[in-house]
Amino acid sequence: MSRPEAKPTVTVNADGPSPFVIVCDHASNRIPEDYGDMGLTQAERESHIAWDPGAMAVSEEMVTILDCPLVASTVSRLVIDCNRDLDAPDLIWQLSETTRIAANENVSAEERRYRIAAFHAPFHAAIDAVLDARAGRETVLVCMHSFTPVYHGIARPWPIGLIHGADVRFTQHVRNALVAETPGLNVGWNEPYAALNGVTLTLERHGDGRGLNATMIEIRNDEIADAAGVALWAERLSRALVAAREAMVAGEGGGRDYA
Amino acid sequence: MSRPEAKPTVTVNADGPSPFVIVCDHASNRIPEDYGDMGLTQAERESHIAWDPGAMAVSEEMVTILDCPLVASTVSRLVIDCNRDLDAPDLIWQLSETTRIAANENVSAEERRYRIAAFHAPFHAAIDAVLDARAGRETVLVCMHSFTPVYHGIARPWPIGLIHGADVRFTQHVRNALVAETPGLNVGWNEPYAALNGVTLTLERHGDGRGLNATMIEIRNDEIADAAGVALWAERLSRALVAAREAMVAGEGGGRDYA
Repeated sequence: MSRPEAKPTVTVNADGPSPFVIVCDHASNRIPEDYGDMGLTQAERESHIAWDPGAMAVSEEMVTILDCPLVASTVSRLVIDCNRDLDAPDLIWQLSETTRIAANENVSAEERRYRIAAFHAPFHAAIDAVLDARAGRETVLVCMHSFTPVYHGIARPWPIGLIHGADVRFTQHVRNALVAETPGLNVGWNEPYAALNGVTLTLERHGDGRGLNATMIEIRNDEIADAAGVALWAERLSRALVAAREAMVAGEGGGRDYA
Repeated sequence: MSRPEAKPTVTVNADGPSPFVIVCDHASNRIPEDYGDMGLTQAERESHIAWDPGAMAVSEEMVTILDCPLVASTVSRLVIDCNRDLDAPDLIWQLSETTRIAANENVSAEERRYRIAAFHAPFHAAIDAVLDARAGRETVLVCMHSFTPVYHGIARPWPIGLIHGADVRFTQHVRNALVAETPGLNVGWNEPYAALNGVTLTLERHGDGRGLNATMIEIRNDEIADAAGVALWAERLSRALVAAREAMVAGEGGGRDYA
């Protein structure tokens, strides 16, 4: 297989002064040219199995609101899932929800190494580059995702879910801020799934691994299917992040001291 | 009027090694919160009078393909047109095509100065920052726009238009490359309008002003209204830019020597 040349990652507003750094693992449904259509229909290639619809649009609006850096993958998770450990069974999915991904069956060891080197490693290196450049500066890692409203036939009731890593505090403050602003908002806590070893690599490696305040945000994708929804959630989440960070700085809930 | 805080410009992939630098003046239809809806309907605020639909999506895909920097405004041209000289009559539009923009009538001198300082100046400063950081490196400026298929009742036949500044050569090579790849493609030459003093500020100031090879690309926005059209034009234009740059380097048409 000849090698795709397009850049596997993009960094937006790299020197943004905000304490927040946004990472969007599943930003794009782009399949590099050499992989063709992977045997999937256009509808499948535009569905949640290929990417997190709306997550990048919200992330980009948050960059404008917060003036923060953003690192995003530009490759579909059908090719390789950048939010998985290298030894996770679904690093290269053969079955996504109910869709067989025949193109990923019988992937050779060489091809597997290639995908890691060409797509997975550069993405995490781009995150490292942004975080390394901020050494000594306050940094809160925010991992942005979206999830499908119905999974394996089960409807998911939460418009928004929050997932924490090793340190629960920042994520608790985000939840508090969201509910304070919108009483009754059904904020999923460790929903639609909890962080487990290997399936929330970005949060673990770059958040917990560096001892940063960090959170993972999952928006149900029907909430951000149009420009109005994207704007609403970008603004709402930006306000919640700012409030959560202020609560951390104030030391509420045993927060760290940024003085 | 209290002051909007969101960032008026965004730089993507600032250190991309490509010789190309893309600028997207009318990337966004965002109206900063303090300006409300400017008295316009949602349809008007989503139409071409507010921005160049599709231009940013194409530009972002070209960043991935070319690995080049991109500077974009994040403010609607309804607030201020970043591609206009400060003394252009339509710097702050009061009439766009047939739509009266009442919110821009009787703008005070103070408000005018504010909009320049808050939105126009930072955008051009961001372009300058990217270009200054590349001093001594080969740079080709590419200004990306889209245009409405029908303007004042006249249908525009060109799916794509190219506009040159003081130096015609690079733009000629882009036209040649587009037509070589797609014989019969109706490439508008200085269409839908030619560069005139004051209405193509970005090309004049940053391209001609620095003596860079430069071009301005206008895509008819019905060509890039969905993901397939965006991908097609991003790929086609990226190939044409690379071919045009190779022709310049080879000295065809009296090109400069980059040796």
